[in-house]
Amino acid sequence: MTVPYYSQQNHGPFETFALGDFDLEGGDRLRGASLAYATFGTLAADGRNAILFPSWYSGTSKILELAYIGSDRALDPNKYFIILVNQIGNGLSSSPSNASAPFNAARFPRITIGDDVRAQHRLISEKFGIEQLALVLGGSMGAQQTYEWAVRFPDAVARAAPIGGTARTTPHNRLLVDTFIDAITSDPAFDSGWYKEGAVHRGLRRHARLFAVSGFTQTLFNQPGWRDLGFTTTDDFVTGFVENHFLPQDPNNLILLAQKWRDADVSRLTHHDLPAALGKIKARTSVIAIEEDVFFPLADIAAEQTLIPRSALKRVSSVWGHLALFGTDPGYNRTIDVHLTELLASH
Amino acid sequence: MTVPYYSQQNHGPFETFALGDFDLEGGDRLRGASLAYATFGTLAADGRNAILFPSWYSGTSKILELAYIGSDRALDPNKYFIILVNQIGNGLSSSPSNASAPFNAARFPRITIGDDVRAQHRLISEKFGIEQLALVLGGSMGAQQTYEWAVRFPDAVARAAPIGGTARTTPHNRLLVDTFIDAITSDPAFDSGWYKEGAVHRGLRRHARLFAVSGFTQTLFNQPGWRDLGFTTTDDFVTGFVENHFLPQDPNNLILLAQKWRDADVSRLTHHDLPAALGKIKARTSVIAIEEDVFFPLADIAAEQTLIPRSALKRVSSVWGHLALFGTDPGYNRTIDVHLTELLASH
Repeated sequence: MTVPYYSQQNHGPFETFALGDFDLEGGDRLRGASLAYATFGTLAADGRNAILFPSWYSGTSKILELAYIGSDRALDPNKYFIILVNQIGNGLSSSPSNASAPFNAARFPRITIGDDVRAQHRLISEKFGIEQLALVLGGSMGAQQTYEWAVRFPDAVARAAPIGGTARTTPHNRLLVDTFIDAITSDPAFDSGWYKEGAVHRGLRRHARLFAVSGFTQTLFNQPGWRDLGFTTTDDFVTGFVENHFLPQDPNNLILLAQKWRDADVSRLTHHDLPAALGKIKARTSVIAIEEDVFFPLADIAAEQTLIPRSALKRVSSVWGHLALFGTDPGYNRTIDVHLTELLASH
Repeated sequence: MTVPYYSQQNHGPFETFALGDFDLEGGDRLRGASLAYATFGTLAADGRNAILFPSWYSGTSKILELAYIGSDRALDPNKYFIILVNQIGNGLSSSPSNASAPFNAARFPRITIGDDVRAQHRLISEKFGIEQLALVLGGSMGAQQTYEWAVRFPDAVARAAPIGGTARTTPHNRLLVDTFIDAITSDPAFDSGWYKEGAVHRGLRRHARLFAVSGFTQTLFNQPGWRDLGFTTTDDFVTGFVENHFLPQDPNNLILLAQKWRDADVSRLTHHDLPAALGKIKARTSVIAIEEDVFFPLADIAAEQTLIPRSALKRVSSVWGHLALFGTDPGYNRTIDVHLTELLASH
């Protein structure tokens, strides 16, 4: 089964890095594993201008490019060598949707954020010979990967900017993500993950609505800022924007990503001692919280930030809530660029 | 089909007031309609010490009694004649679960908040001869009924205290309530509302989890205050407290209530002019917002309050969020009593 959504046409151009047989934290072996990535700019001779930006839930390198990279942005390809990497399971890198039988679809092995970061470390060292990244950043699940990078490879990360995410998923967030998973798996057409392509559209629509209800702020719906995007009613917006985003995606891919999100926890590396894990971070870190974020509330993000040695809490406000990450709010984009520019100028 | 949950043993003692054939706003006729209610205290000779307190979503008069009434509480039956009334569709008053065929179950007519308030007006005038209530109050859907009372019968309401609710459901809240409904109706066992008793338990469990995710605050789950109730894990709490609450209830009842919640709008009475509707209120009104409420955010409640002539915005804070209404938080109970005592003392 190939899923047309995950094509070079929709998400490229992207390159592929072959990991070979890749042993996973859970004990499985991901055979013929690969990471899809896209680069912008030129790696400096001293190798010290590299930025790594992993993808978030249901996103690919394409949305990162569109929303964050430009000669007028903090992530300026004239100055930096920017690597946008697709997390495992997102449909471009190794995923349930593109794996070969028998380890395909519902039998694709379970992946952790730690697996992603170990694979990405091989990409930057083996492919590009980079020893230390000038910056690792990411939003949401990208923030989870950023924290994992900074804790697991402290000497390889000079600066870190986790945006709208936590280092250890909270009990409430775990519960929330479980409702996303249940929305898909409860569709009888899901059939334990052995569905026919397109069959799970009811579950995907329900999942999209749950995502919309807490992904955006209440103010966005009530005011309503989505009219600027050409939608006419609340339902038109939720259908045309959010259902439209999820409907062409593969249910097993989304569930794999959601499980990875739910189980993210850097304290796995320190016998469940979170202060010890975050205390290992050497990077200068700007912990960026979206003030209105319901997925990853400011209070949870701030509590972790106090445990990170060379860190500062930065805030950004947007009526788009967590999904301001998508770049739809010019005010969010400007503030993020201020924070990133400041961090990149620091030593 | 009788549903054992809605018994006198579980929710009584309660009385029943026969409405006879009751014509509904939607055009249907509810034949043999009745309201279940419970009273506390004695009606004064001048009839001016009566308090009306309608039920909220999925609740009955019993939880109102347990959480709000007592000789040491603002709602003191030694001083007031307190009428706890069950809204139509809650399983005690006329409901899909107790109606006779053919107008039972999925064919029970659609009910509006306006229908409830007209029925309740007949109860207080025909049964008790009350011309003006000293106070109408309610939480959540009870607040919706309180607003409807104050707008529809301005001379019959001396004081009003809507708690954690709005007079017109916001677009975001409509979307949220639709996810609750969908969680039930998407269960194949729901069978368009013609299910076998107990068959829809998966849908009810999903509904309960969605309710829990935004009904409580994130802080409650993360801290976690629910341990005080004897639960051991997040999942144990959600299952033992929230699923346990919804599982014995009737799916058609819940959906009827949810639709009523979603469509609540006092501006129906004034050609969709909300300021005109709220401007009709003569009651001295304490609009009480739960600061952490995700179902009915402070900002939405505050915006409506400014449109009510003799009103004040009162706040209460609780880590239990919207579901502080249940009375599990002593701090919430104390603050609510302060607000209600102050309002009852005002003229």
